[in-house]
Amino acid sequence: MKKVNIAVIGTGRMGSVHTRNIARLIPEANLVAVCDIRLEVAQAVADELGIQRVVKDYHELLADPNIEAILIATSTNTHAFIMKDVAAAGKHIFCEKPLALNLADIDKALAGVAEAGVKLQVGFNRRFDKSFQKVRAIVAPGEIGRPCILRITDRDPELPAMEFLRVSGGMFLDQTIHDFDMARFQVGEIEEVYAIGGVLIEPELKEFGDIDTDVVTLKFANGAVGAIDNSRQAVYGYDQRLEVFCSNGTAMANNEFENTAVMGKPDGFLSAKLPHFFMQRYAPCYVDEVRQFIECVREDKPTPTTGADGRAAVVLGHAAWKSLHENRPVKVSEIG
Amino acid sequence: MKKVNIAVIGTGRMGSVHTRNIARLIPEANLVAVCDIRLEVAQAVADELGIQRVVKDYHELLADPNIEAILIATSTNTHAFIMKDVAAAGKHIFCEKPLALNLADIDKALAGVAEAGVKLQVGFNRRFDKSFQKVRAIVAPGEIGRPCILRITDRDPELPAMEFLRVSGGMFLDQTIHDFDMARFQVGEIEEVYAIGGVLIEPELKEFGDIDTDVVTLKFANGAVGAIDNSRQAVYGYDQRLEVFCSNGTAMANNEFENTAVMGKPDGFLSAKLPHFFMQRYAPCYVDEVRQFIECVREDKPTPTTGADGRAAVVLGHAAWKSLHENRPVKVSEIG
Amino acid sequence: MKKVNIAVIGTGRMGSVHTRNIARLIPEANLVAVCDIRLEVAQAVADELGIQRVVKDYHELLADPNIEAILIATSTNTHAFIMKDVAAAGKHIFCEKPLALNLADIDKALAGVAEAGVKLQVGFNRRFDKSFQKVRAIVAPGEIGRPCILRITDRDPELPAMEFLRVSGGMFLDQTIHDFDMARFQVGEIEEVYAIGGVLIEPELKEFGDIDTDVVTLKFANGAVGAIDNSRQAVYGYDQRLEVFCSNGTAMANNEFENTAVMGKPDGFLSAKLPHFFMQRYAPCYVDEVRQFIECVREDKPTPTTGADGRAAVVLGHAAWKSLHENRPVKVSEIG
Amino acid sequence: MKKVNIAVIGTGRMGSVHTRNIARLIPEANLVAVCDIRLEVAQAVADELGIQRVVKDYHELLADPNIEAILIATSTNTHAFIMKDVAAAGKHIFCEKPLALNLADIDKALAGVAEAGVKLQVGFNRRFDKSFQKVRAIVAPGEIGRPCILRITDRDPELPAMEFLRVSGGMFLDQTIHDFDMARFQVGEIEEVYAIGGVLIEPELKEFGDIDTDVVTLKFANGAVGAIDNSRQAVYGYDQRLEVFCSNGTAMANNEFENTAVMGKPDGFLSAKLPHFFMQRYAPCYVDEVRQFIECVREDKPTPTTGADGRAAVVLGHAAWKSLHENRPVKVSEIG
Repeated sequence: MKKVNIAVIGTGRMGSVHTRNIARLIPEANLVAVCDIRLEVAQAVADELGIQRVVKDYHELLADPNIEAILIATSTNTHAFIMKDVAAAGKHIFCEKPLALNLADIDKALAGVAEAGVKLQVGFNRRFDKSFQKVRAIVAPGEIGRPCILRITDRDPELPAMEFLRVSGGMFLDQTIHDFDMARFQVGEIEEVYAIGGVLIEPELKEFGDIDTDVVTLKFANGAVGAIDNSRQAVYGYDQRLEVFCSNGTAMANNEFENTAVMGKPDGFLSAKLPHFFMQRYAPCYVDEVRQFIECVREDKPTPTTGADGRAAVVLGHAAWKSLHENRPVKVSEIG
Repeated sequence: MKKVNIAVIGTGRMGSVHTRNIARLIPEANLVAVCDIRLEVAQAVADELGIQRVVKDYHELLADPNIEAILIATSTNTHAFIMKDVAAAGKHIFCEKPLALNLADIDKALAGVAEAGVKLQVGFNRRFDKSFQKVRAIVAPGEIGRPCILRITDRDPELPAMEFLRVSGGMFLDQTIHDFDMARFQVGEIEEVYAIGGVLIEPELKEFGDIDTDVVTLKFANGAVGAIDNSRQAVYGYDQRLEVFCSNGTAMANNEFENTAVMGKPDGFLSAKLPHFFMQRYAPCYVDEVRQFIECVREDKPTPTTGADGRAAVVLGHAAWKSLHENRPVKVSEIG
Repeated sequence: MKKVNIAVIGTGRMGSVHTRNIARLIPEANLVAVCDIRLEVAQAVADELGIQRVVKDYHELLADPNIEAILIATSTNTHAFIMKDVAAAGKHIFCEKPLALNLADIDKALAGVAEAGVKLQVGFNRRFDKSFQKVRAIVAPGEIGRPCILRITDRDPELPAMEFLRVSGGMFLDQTIHDFDMARFQVGEIEEVYAIGGVLIEPELKEFGDIDTDVVTLKFANGAVGAIDNSRQAVYGYDQRLEVFCSNGTAMANNEFENTAVMGKPDGFLSAKLPHFFMQRYAPCYVDEVRQFIECVREDKPTPTTGADGRAAVVLGHAAWKSLHENRPVKVSEIG
Repeated sequence: MKKVNIAVIGTGRMGSVHTRNIARLIPEANLVAVCDIRLEVAQAVADELGIQRVVKDYHELLADPNIEAILIATSTNTHAFIMKDVAAAGKHIFCEKPLALNLADIDKALAGVAEAGVKLQVGFNRRFDKSFQKVRAIVAPGEIGRPCILRITDRDPELPAMEFLRVSGGMFLDQTIHDFDMARFQVGEIEEVYAIGGVLIEPELKEFGDIDTDVVTLKFANGAVGAIDNSRQAVYGYDQRLEVFCSNGTAMANNEFENTAVMGKPDGFLSAKLPHFFMQRYAPCYVDEVRQFIECVREDKPTPTTGADGRAAVVLGHAAWKSLHENRPVKVSEIG
């Protein structure tokens, strides 16, 4: 079977990770070009990996009939229009989350994807985590009964840069969005959310209406209930846990630790902290999600995370913001 | 220092536990009498323990000047009026939770206690658990910053008898009431609650409007947020966990297990289930709470769990029911 | 069924624990008398528990036809001759370990027991631990194959008093003796031992030829091999672990901890230390072993730990000392 | 700084892992050639990775002045003479363990290395494990006192192929050799060993005098003692644990698990098995050890695992065999 020719648009933080993964660890893909409006950034990673073609303007890639697929890892506000262009050029798309902050933009992009009939995968990396997948494998067949309670703990180790936060869509669209997707992955469709939270860590967030701490409750269509809790500052590392409690058992995914060493001392046992952040914790997922995307293109299969998944998580993020602002439960159907 | 003369009213499930604990394990107390309207029940435990005096009508005990303290473990609907009578007789009171289901009854009883100037301790046994106390000892001094998120998981192993459930006050007043008290113990006063949940296990509960599964979110006066989750059926045992996540660290109390044995097999490692239920899990707490009550009487100190604590938990239970029925956040001040 | 009348000889550290347990927690026994050559010591515990009869000379108890069983918890050097006298008086015996340091004394005592036809139980408390019992319940039926490797870690938190150590029989007869018995309980008869070790903690031990650190390897009759490791100073608490690794799986008993609280901090997760020492760690075992002894007397059943068990562990202790002194493997049959 | 030109001799199981790691994950190295006497095996991996040069006879590489370093991953019986040739050609060497089974061969090879003044690193991959390194980082500075007891559990999931075992040097030179090196890494020089064990799993091993189960005790020069236990069949996965118990604390490295998912069921909690085998468990170590070798070559630093380390572990393996055969402790100095 022949390799899939792919290019990467956006070689910043996440984009450079994807670029290295494709070049080194996904032999089924052929990385033909990288693109960044900061040409020198793209050039640096291309040099490191021996990639032949480097462009500044992504339109150059669209005209190349040799390129079958494009990975989009630009800043969020450009995802939607680039997706539309790439789809129109007939190329398959892997796009980082969130698809966009604005639902109208998402809907236009998804319409373009549908019209062009190209594949679209959204970068919900956590769905590829082996422990979360194991939880789903336990729960989904029903061997431990019906899901009753979902609990997700998702806490960043430290606040991202303020300039990023100001354009991020805020906590529910930047951080909780992963949990909304995970909740749908594990338990199913969500009908209503209620969000509480505030600024308990970093007062500067108040300037632009963001928060750093929250609890979001979920009502699922199947009758299950759930609670997500988030923080921007877990000093012991990136805290990633979930539990799907069912009528005849429970399935939990606990944290991974930096190492397994434990020191016994007069005041107790000290074990390692958690991996610093998502780059470390989910490193294998970033490889697997793109490997599966490549496989879907090669074998013409549906992608594991779809445009509809990408949209649903954004809708839930908006619902959570509305709930927080109006201090009432908000139905997902109110958002659209 | 002389022993405290104490009598027990109500020698059913909890009452007989307290009776045995006092007789065997609290040498600072002198168990002078037991009382139950089912005289043969009281007689049986008295015979087992060599207790001299057994009465059917608790009023007989009130007239005895020798008795300094009374432990009330009768059915909930009798707590309030017995408390009032015991207080009027000038005897100190240890009363099982809940004080009553009805706030007016509680207020009358507490007024009687206040007027008589006797001590009152409410049986919130979990406050005496060594792990929950350790969490509080970590959090309260502020060494890991301010509390941000409280998480409590409290799941019974199986449904109590239907005849009990029909008069229990329902999930929020029977089961969650412990979590409301624990939340106040760990983080402080609660201003608002929001409850979701339903019947996912036992349809018969619908006949009298009870539920078996819920998530309750909490807003604390200090800005922290919280989520409690409850179920009536955790098939792996009595699930009792909590976490107080703070701005500079976290403190968790994990489950205890029946034993520490682990079997390694081709499909993984199997460890023990949880203790069956509260009698096993909190056995030492039932001793400690009464031992401290006796100490408070002997040394004339304030009790560790007060009438105000008992009332606050009932208020929160009513707020949760109101929230569930009206599907909106309910302020504690709405209840009274 | 009627209660068993029992008396306790020796009310020091272990004896007072047994006395309290019998008086408070074993309703099937009737504690009729306590005895200690330090009469005031016996009197104090008798006062605390309301025991009627207190004697200084144990011979007084032997003449009492009402007493059916005697618990011996005197100092080790008196066990053998008291046992012989008690057996001759036709009373059943629970004796603390070790039966004696000298095999000739043990053999004379066991001959007396056999001749009198009374029951004898030796105080190997660890056999009554729920986790060690669970390991045995997994291994013994063969569901995970044949035992291949036994590992025991047994470390005291701190050195006992020097005056005790000087008459204790040394590490292998005071501490490792428990592990020899546990090894026989879990895997079966031992044919050969090899011991290494030395003084790494407390130089004063060299004065009387004792050690504070060792590893003892075991060859079992069934072909399995084993290793015990011991220390007199585990600063993080009383370390008690074992594993029976089998051809189709493994069964381990991990440590118990003082509580389940865990604190997450920037340098990792700190959990509780271990229970301080045997009194805390094995508290329920001290009750269970005597409860079972009482049951064996009442129901005329064989005791769970026999005189032969008590002798075998002492033989293994002597073999270990011989091995250490001669730096060679020593067959158990060399000792006798 | 310029890249190090390296070639790989032997592209079988371990050799192909090293080849892929160098090509994909060690940008500081330039993989210029691969060599295998089975030319098609070398060609296949070269094709996969785009390596230009493939040779059958390693002598061809020796003549190439462009090649600075050679990684030797051929079968054990060829290590020594290839090493000698490579050293004579003035190239730095990374050689898989064991250096050879025969001490005379090792000594000749090491003499050649010394004479040529080239660097030599031996493939003791476990020294590069983050958890074992953390244990050493805790122990080595002495913050928890002096080492007293070393415990290593090292159990393979299943027996290797019989044809491999027949030429492997047997359990102590194939499997335990890693533990001997780890023991030296953690605690220091070993003076005496004593080995017990036998065939408890696979009777066919008896044909050529090998065993599948053992316990080896260690006496260290610094007074510490140790015990290693090994099996060829741990059905729950590759079991890799160690503990360095010290006079003021302990440091342990526990197992890694395939994932962190846990299922709660009526019979307890089931967690994942261990990684299948060394390829999975130590995957990052195989990268790190070669990365450090490349760094040592580039920066002219001493290698982290030396020829002396490689020799010492083989000496200990022979001492263990002698001990088993003669059933007595064997001094390392008896072997040479």
